[in-house]
Amino acid sequence: MPVDTTHSGRVDGPSREGIPDDGKAPKYYLAKLEVAALLDELGEGERVPAERELAARFGVARETLRQALQELALEGRIRRQGRGTVVAGPKVIQPLSLLSYTEAVRTRGLRSARIPVAEEHLRADPVLAADLELHDPPEVWHLERVIAIEDESVGLESDFIPWHLVADVAHEYDPRTSLYAFLRERLDLGPADAEERIETVLASPREAALIGTNPALPMLVVHRLTWDQQGRPFERSRTLYRGDRFGVSTRLRNPD
Amino acid sequence: MPVDTTHSGRVDGPSREGIPDDGKAPKYYLAKLEVAALLDELGEGERVPAERELAARFGVARETLRQALQELALEGRIRRQGRGTVVAGPKVIQPLSLLSYTEAVRTRGLRSARIPVAEEHLRADPVLAADLELHDPPEVWHLERVIAIEDESVGLESDFIPWHLVADVAHEYDPRTSLYAFLRERLDLGPADAEERIETVLASPREAALIGTNPALPMLVVHRLTWDQQGRPFERSRTLYRGDRFGVSTRLRNPD
Repeated sequence: MPVDTTHSGRVDGPSREGIPDDGKAPKYYLAKLEVAALLDELGEGERVPAERELAARFGVARETLRQALQELALEGRIRRQGRGTVVAGPKVIQPLSLLSYTEAVRTRGLRSARIPVAEEHLRADPVLAADLELHDPPEVWHLERVIAIEDESVGLESDFIPWHLVADVAHEYDPRTSLYAFLRERLDLGPADAEERIETVLASPREAALIGTNPALPMLVVHRLTWDQQGRPFERSRTLYRGDRFGVSTRLRNPD
Repeated sequence: MPVDTTHSGRVDGPSREGIPDDGKAPKYYLAKLEVAALLDELGEGERVPAERELAARFGVARETLRQALQELALEGRIRRQGRGTVVAGPKVIQPLSLLSYTEAVRTRGLRSARIPVAEEHLRADPVLAADLELHDPPEVWHLERVIAIEDESVGLESDFIPWHLVADVAHEYDPRTSLYAFLRERLDLGPADAEERIETVLASPREAALIGTNPALPMLVVHRLTWDQQGRPFERSRTLYRGDRFGVSTRLRNPD
């Protein structure tokens, strides 16, 4: 087979530059490729030229260019800064881990924060009650917090803990701090095993408002069920991460 | 703390039904909630009433209703069937695994297929060459295949293998079959360790055309680097999964 040098074999970008084999691509998409090449030239943090200027430069209608910029924003290639738009930095890649989010981010030398949104004592629905093997009445402690890294909101986390485990200590907890550290110190409770499910969803208007993103931004959602050292489920969580700023990583090993 | 029974504590849906705490939600989003409740009532495979009918039923403009249906389609709640629209089934959740995709799907009793798109011998760019520890000249074997489960296209996979490993046997390979089974049988080569990165991206027009989805559908992308039993990297892959039809799952264990 002859070596084909017309394709770069890049695995991080769309192969064959994303253009259908019949060569017909929508105008906005071709404009997007041109703007993306310009962003690479400019580099992180640099100001992106105004819409009008880019439309003239690439010879397309402003509406076409707007659609190109919108996709680049959804993909996290550009972001608003003050009144302008700048080239965004690379996504933050978070290793999937039994550690709490706070601990995992800190081990990487990044500043993290949690901003409390809700702390409440709820009746669980039947699915949640079954997952957490709740007794009657099926009550949970619910914590909802915005997640920030280096002062940027990147996600929204909901934790559900069986109420009977924390009824005596919940009032002592400061929701700006690590939940896992609190559970370990006060109850000697820690994660031994977890099952995670990762999907992509669209942010709801409420979620977008809390995280400070566009509505309808694609998000990564991680659903998690966590068991303690005795094999008892003690946490169900749902964490939304901004798809434009965040990815997750994992390592798979063969036990053989 | 009193038990708050006004919230259901559902963790799979957006909490508080996705409406901002100030109670102001866009019209299309309120329509989307009403249509979503109707879909739950109808059940999988049932026909969704026409746009005009739904707009009249929920008292909104057709354009508002169209936006609601568009989001429900992006989220995989509804899908086209023939000339109409039906309630979609649940997402397929694929466990992250060292197994090949084909093997992993088969162990779950589902019919899977791979439809070859490209098979080529390429020069690797410097990043790919470094990842695969390629010698000079840095050449790779590239396989690109559409992934189907139960006759539905769900993704697009690109595999890059060092050419020097497969130069003598590549011509014997049938790209409709499992690559890992072929590498194991012909070269005694198998995965011992892999690093995966999961993100959400938008489909390019080419990818959307190959998979048969809307352009700009949010996709899950899994980037993978795989090592063999001797610790040598032998595969880099990039797999796109339709975000509306697919999720991934993993199990985390504490070695203590």
